Amino acid sequence: MSQIRIGILGGGYMGKAHSVAMSAVGAVFNTGLRPRLEMICASSPESAERYRAAYGFHRSTHDWRTLVKDPEVDAIVIATPQEIHRDIAEAALALGKPVFCEKPMGASIDDSAAMVAAAEASGVANMVGFNYIRTPASQFARQMIADGEIGDITWFRGEHTEDFYADPETPASWRTEGMANGTMGDLAPHMINAALALIGPITRVMGSYETVHKSRPGGRVTNDDHGQMMCRFENGAMGHMYFSRIATGRKMGYAYDISGTKGAIRFDQEDQNAIWLYRAEGREAERGFRKILTGPAHPDYEPFCQGPGHGTGYQDQIIIEARDFLRAIETGAPVWPTFRDGYEVNRVIAATLASADSGIWTDIRDF
Amino acid sequence: MSQIRIGILGGGYMGKAHSVAMSAVGAVFNTGLRPRLEMICASSPESAERYRAAYGFHRSTHDWRTLVKDPEVDAIVIATPQEIHRDIAEAALALGKPVFCEKPMGASIDDSAAMVAAAEASGVANMVGFNYIRTPASQFARQMIADGEIGDITWFRGEHTEDFYADPETPASWRTEGMANGTMGDLAPHMINAALALIGPITRVMGSYETVHKSRPGGRVTNDDHGQMMCRFENGAMGHMYFSRIATGRKMGYAYDISGTKGAIRFDQEDQNAIWLYRAEGREAERGFRKILTGPAHPDYEPFCQGPGHGTGYQDQIIIEARDFLRAIETGAPVWPTFRDGYEVNRVIAATLASADSGIWTDIRDF
Amino acid sequence: MSQIRIGILGGGYMGKAHSVAMSAVGAVFNTGLRPRLEMICASSPESAERYRAAYGFHRSTHDWRTLVKDPEVDAIVIATPQEIHRDIAEAALALGKPVFCEKPMGASIDDSAAMVAAAEASGVANMVGFNYIRTPASQFARQMIADGEIGDITWFRGEHTEDFYADPETPASWRTEGMANGTMGDLAPHMINAALALIGPITRVMGSYETVHKSRPGGRVTNDDHGQMMCRFENGAMGHMYFSRIATGRKMGYAYDISGTKGAIRFDQEDQNAIWLYRAEGREAERGFRKILTGPAHPDYEPFCQGPGHGTGYQDQIIIEARDFLRAIETGAPVWPTFRDGYEVNRVIAATLASADSGIWTDIRDF
Amino acid sequence: MSQIRIGILGGGYMGKAHSVAMSAVGAVFNTGLRPRLEMICASSPESAERYRAAYGFHRSTHDWRTLVKDPEVDAIVIATPQEIHRDIAEAALALGKPVFCEKPMGASIDDSAAMVAAAEASGVANMVGFNYIRTPASQFARQMIADGEIGDITWFRGEHTEDFYADPETPASWRTEGMANGTMGDLAPHMINAALALIGPITRVMGSYETVHKSRPGGRVTNDDHGQMMCRFENGAMGHMYFSRIATGRKMGYAYDISGTKGAIRFDQEDQNAIWLYRAEGREAERGFRKILTGPAHPDYEPFCQGPGHGTGYQDQIIIEARDFLRAIETGAPVWPTFRDGYEVNRVIAATLASADSGIWTDIRDF
Repeated sequence: MSQIRIGILGGGYMGKAHSVAMSAVGAVFNTGLRPRLEMICASSPESAERYRAAYGFHRSTHDWRTLVKDPEVDAIVIATPQEIHRDIAEAALALGKPVFCEKPMGASIDDSAAMVAAAEASGVANMVGFNYIRTPASQFARQMIADGEIGDITWFRGEHTEDFYADPETPASWRTEGMANGTMGDLAPHMINAALALIGPITRVMGSYETVHKSRPGGRVTNDDHGQMMCRFENGAMGHMYFSRIATGRKMGYAYDISGTKGAIRFDQEDQNAIWLYRAEGREAERGFRKILTGPAHPDYEPFCQGPGHGTGYQDQIIIEARDFLRAIETGAPVWPTFRDGYEVNRVIAATLASADSGIWTDIRDF
Repeated sequence: MSQIRIGILGGGYMGKAHSVAMSAVGAVFNTGLRPRLEMICASSPESAERYRAAYGFHRSTHDWRTLVKDPEVDAIVIATPQEIHRDIAEAALALGKPVFCEKPMGASIDDSAAMVAAAEASGVANMVGFNYIRTPASQFARQMIADGEIGDITWFRGEHTEDFYADPETPASWRTEGMANGTMGDLAPHMINAALALIGPITRVMGSYETVHKSRPGGRVTNDDHGQMMCRFENGAMGHMYFSRIATGRKMGYAYDISGTKGAIRFDQEDQNAIWLYRAEGREAERGFRKILTGPAHPDYEPFCQGPGHGTGYQDQIIIEARDFLRAIETGAPVWPTFRDGYEVNRVIAATLASADSGIWTDIRDF
Repeated sequence: MSQIRIGILGGGYMGKAHSVAMSAVGAVFNTGLRPRLEMICASSPESAERYRAAYGFHRSTHDWRTLVKDPEVDAIVIATPQEIHRDIAEAALALGKPVFCEKPMGASIDDSAAMVAAAEASGVANMVGFNYIRTPASQFARQMIADGEIGDITWFRGEHTEDFYADPETPASWRTEGMANGTMGDLAPHMINAALALIGPITRVMGSYETVHKSRPGGRVTNDDHGQMMCRFENGAMGHMYFSRIATGRKMGYAYDISGTKGAIRFDQEDQNAIWLYRAEGREAERGFRKILTGPAHPDYEPFCQGPGHGTGYQDQIIIEARDFLRAIETGAPVWPTFRDGYEVNRVIAATLASADSGIWTDIRDF
Repeated sequence: MSQIRIGILGGGYMGKAHSVAMSAVGAVFNTGLRPRLEMICASSPESAERYRAAYGFHRSTHDWRTLVKDPEVDAIVIATPQEIHRDIAEAALALGKPVFCEKPMGASIDDSAAMVAAAEASGVANMVGFNYIRTPASQFARQMIADGEIGDITWFRGEHTEDFYADPETPASWRTEGMANGTMGDLAPHMINAALALIGPITRVMGSYETVHKSRPGGRVTNDDHGQMMCRFENGAMGHMYFSRIATGRKMGYAYDISGTKGAIRFDQEDQNAIWLYRAEGREAERGFRKILTGPAHPDYEPFCQGPGHGTGYQDQIIIEARDFLRAIETGAPVWPTFRDGYEVNRVIAATLASADSGIWTDIRDF
């Protein structure tokens, strides 16, 4: 075991999640590289110091450049707003420091393309944080599909639906401003990443999105409340995705239904310890969707619990990300998802927005 | 109670269902008009006679004109292939005989328009058979939405998915020939009817459909295996529908998710005695989707079972249709869905097919 | 097809259910014996005549002896209060007329023993109506267990829970008087019958029951609100059953969980079109309870619906009973459950009540 | 923040779980007392050193007395076999060191009584680890019941069912020897603790338990495979519990159904992020069990995830225990469950075993 000194940029929700993960990953996984919480950066000296004490870092700063350049910081975790993802990543990569960047990667498709270029030029570990995909359930789905266990995929339906803006009286905030914080910017990346990981590249899209509640107490809303997209995958499958922050009653509706010629898979993150599998085999009278509870037999499960049925929580996925980032650094081998994967997600979003803006629909009155 | 003499055209699955319903409806509902199974028509004298004996009709014929014109036949149920829906309906309506017609109504949008014209000119009872919508669950959903209980509708997602052609080795048959027997012709009408009934008129669509398995043992496939559509409703709601006969594992996936500003409703016909309701009210800690078991408190439930929880079956919906058709005849008042409602469904399908054929998509390679 | 003339005693809920079933069974099943609704008996001439007209019988009477002796009544269905089950059955059997008797059979264990003796002496068809067991789901469970598909049974847990008396303010009625109308008399028979049918004979019991709400608006309560029993089956399995009319929220909680050495089965009548099966085979990662939707591949399903997923309702089970009763008459072969099966159920109840009355418990203060 | 130096006895599954929890609790909760992983004890010097390195302790030992007496160990976590719980606890308490002891507490009811006496004499923090009860779901259930939200409790049904010994070919091991490792010793404590916490004291029991598979590859089985108990609570409620390690298909069947006069609650740890609540209020047509997803509005949820729907895992419960133990030390106030609560659980088990051994059953042949 040798020590690796971690610098985290951003002390908010994701900053805390990654700090806790880096604290715990060593004991949980008996990793080769043991992280040390070296330095945390936040927007003011006071908040940075507060986070330092709360999360157990050695030092703090309010200047990201200071953190990136610090000779005792070996690797970087970016949990800041997207506007400075690119600058931070380019600076760190130029110094040969591995970078883990929270999704969505960069403030624009150009930013993310530049980040890919910098990462690939540097040759060091680069990784994007799409944490939901890391449940044992979704990793199992990915493996089953890749192994052909449900045959050729014919249909993918995904959604990422929540209801934190379902009430028209919920006040405007930073969340209701800027494309990056709307559903196409904030929620879509997770499910598009899942679609690409589970089914493969997307070739064509046709989308639609809108702001349902155009003003809220405290201000106007300048980004979208929900959006949808029909798509075609390179392997021929047809698909549909829906993203919403106004899906009343949905708390973590990160869900997909997948049909193949030999079976089907269904998942909903609201019951993240289960995955549903149907196999079109055996006698007809015994066929049905199986509710499989994830356990030691599934990918990325064992280290947490030696017994089955113990359940995985959100923080567990963040610890898995920490483990994988450390592995990427240790071995030098790329670990999915790399910056390039993050860029592919952004590309699908850009195409969807463009197709929606083109406004081509068929009027029912013509029939 | 006075007797009404029923003539049924078609002795197959739906002909049997309506025969059983007409046998039972009097005892179940204590109807004012009591049906008598007067005459059944099938494609040959032998099959007509066999159905007559099996279902308890008084007479049989293999000529639909004979049945329609028979002076002792008071009302007509059409359960034949769609090609002759229009001829039968026009002939019966010209004689002033009420007509119940199985969905989808007519072989083309022109046929269904002509049937509406004939029905409205005649002034007699005319009704279309979209049986799935008649569960107490879906009737309750319709009432709740109409009463504004879940607020303004923002999103409708519907599907009608089954898997009877999921296996590529299932042989070609009459079902794999002709648009009327594909998913857009056979399954889509049910869910489009539900969408219109629950949410209201559709104004714009953008669709996509395809034949996944282009040949099967025994021949080529000339109609679609699955299709999807994004849509916009007149009340502003956004929507999506999907129809499939290759949805591996789905047996009766007639399902919808509806979001409103004050609540949400979810339903899946695979558990047709339950409906899920979410209300965005009360304290946060107690909110959740309620699984409501349909019972005496719900529309169209009581007559069958005086106690709660007894469950409704498919045949029960057909009996409800029989009751409603008898009521329409008895009172002269139109009973939903009329021929006009059937026509509206066909119109949405025609627009969807046209939009899909226009082939406008956005290529991901441009981004 | 030859006609059989049916006399039904009782015009209330079950009388209506059996009348509708006898109207429909011919068209549904194309039975060899076709029932004719000959005569109905109710407590007064007026009510009898009203039921006659409503259900479509030819004649009515208010004297059960008149109906039983009528030479144009071939077979008898008893849907009266239990006090006169025995008299009616003995009279009919003495005339060689087949008898179908609603559960629970007879007003006492002695009555039911006498009914078994009369039935076995007569040699004619005799059958008891435990309708819930007749879903395709429960028939499939029975077949799977009998075939050894889930191995040796180690555990059976059953419940029949409803909530029609959960509210202490629900007034006293005939249902709150007399052991026959309490949970041990009214609900327990269904689940005990299921246990005997699924697992086999019970050898030992230890029970407990009580009246929770001892008085209600309108009077005192003289029968039990809920009861439970631990038991041992002849095949060695351990078991537990619970019966309640105060199980708040439960509408038709006729449910069982069964563990075997090779698998498990779970069922809840609140979703009566599904049954859950677990098989301890195949690779660990794919094991899970399968939600099997009942369809054409399951026992007693096909006749109703040629397509899968259509759902079975309560009335469908009553029609299946009518079919089986007609078959028993036609073939002369006994059809499960016979009067003897009804007697076995009563025996288990009697033993449970006796064990509960003995009051042997272990006091926790001694430890 | 001041530091508290933790000594953990036992490096196996629970030892690791508590080590990880103590690593993470500071960053997660920003606790007043910050734990330092001072010393770990395991059965040999080699294993102790291995655990030390893996989990991040400062020192290791293979002698529990060394750890307990060490002046730089401030508080003790016992995760050893039960045989030495008492000795360790008495030694530590005598030195005034707070003790957290894994369940079940002590090897016998006498041991646990002695541990209570020692703890109460010492006046320092003492706590037992029944981790499953600490989900936000179960804490919410406890609060709802205590607040009278579902009225007077009439029925409690609990089970703790798993299937790790369902296969008769699974070899004998330490788990199949000794009452402490059978279902009554190992699984029953969790659900009995839940029953006491949710409903209150138990006054009477009547139990039954058995070894189904008396020998297994590798040896004879000397403890029980499953057991059940009927019980009566001090508040009048009736109850039943079942414990099994042969419940084929169950992975974490820690589940309960509770009926009250005004509502009902259902929970199953296999879907630990949801709890089902029924309220007998509002209009009948809208009543149903609500599936409530636990989130920030529920007890013990917020600290982990600021957003709803993120899901809680097993390790999260262990961290909550760590937080509560630190709080008990910091404030000096007792934190549930104390040693006394652990003793009450053991008392119910002892009474259940005694009642089962008395063998009083009613023979069905007498009826």
